[in-house]
Amino acid sequence: MSTTLPLLPEALDGCCGTVISGVISAEDAERTAKTFKALGDPTRIRLLSLIAASPDGEACVCDLTEPVGLSQPTVSHHMKQLVDAGLATREQRGRWAYYRVATEALDTAAAALRG
Amino acid sequence: MSTTLPLLPEALDGCCGTVISGVISAEDAERTAKTFKALGDPTRIRLLSLIAASPDGEACVCDLTEPVGLSQPTVSHHMKQLVDAGLATREQRGRWAYYRVATEALDTAAAALRG
Repeated sequence: MSTTLPLLPEALDGCCGTVISGVISAEDAERTAKTFKALGDPTRIRLLSLIAASPDGEACVCDLTEPVGLSQPTVSHHMKQLVDAGLATREQRGRWAYYRVATEALDTAAAALRG
Repeated sequence: MSTTLPLLPEALDGCCGTVISGVISAEDAERTAKTFKALGDPTRIRLLSLIAASPDGEACVCDLTEPVGLSQPTVSHHMKQLVDAGLATREQRGRWAYYRVATEALDTAAAALRG
């Protein structure tokens, strides 16, 4: 998808299928499950929430460790899973990695659950 | 929640929190992640889709094994995870278990991903 327009149901159907409107293909089920697997961990849910609530919607990994009570390598590992699933973006600036939530990907995941 | 009215954003905020509107509590993150973990498997996504697409929105476990190419105990195990997460309901009728998708729970999960 090369557009940044809001995703319409039609666009979503064309892209990934939805779970409960018609039988989903095996390929779309794999893709959809991968997204939800990344969301299926409380620490990752909290990280997404903390990032979204940060000033300008961006958070340094250095500011995420204390709220979740985990080491930086562990937080970075969780963030890598979110980035790999397309649910967050990462930008290295000097010493630190900065993350943003990919809200369009969350919208797409949400739309996949609607009929 | 004792109501069966459609979930409004306000109701959802009162119930479970959302991921990207304010910082989610640890408890709500646990609950939300549990739902997404159940959705984080391609077979379970396909089972939900097959059930939703069945006549009257209901499917016998005996009709689910062939489309996903798995044994009945394996399908039953996946369905138990979906039922435990509140994403499907199960009714035993005679020899067979019949399942329905809990569409309200899918709507709640979808709403948790929106701002």
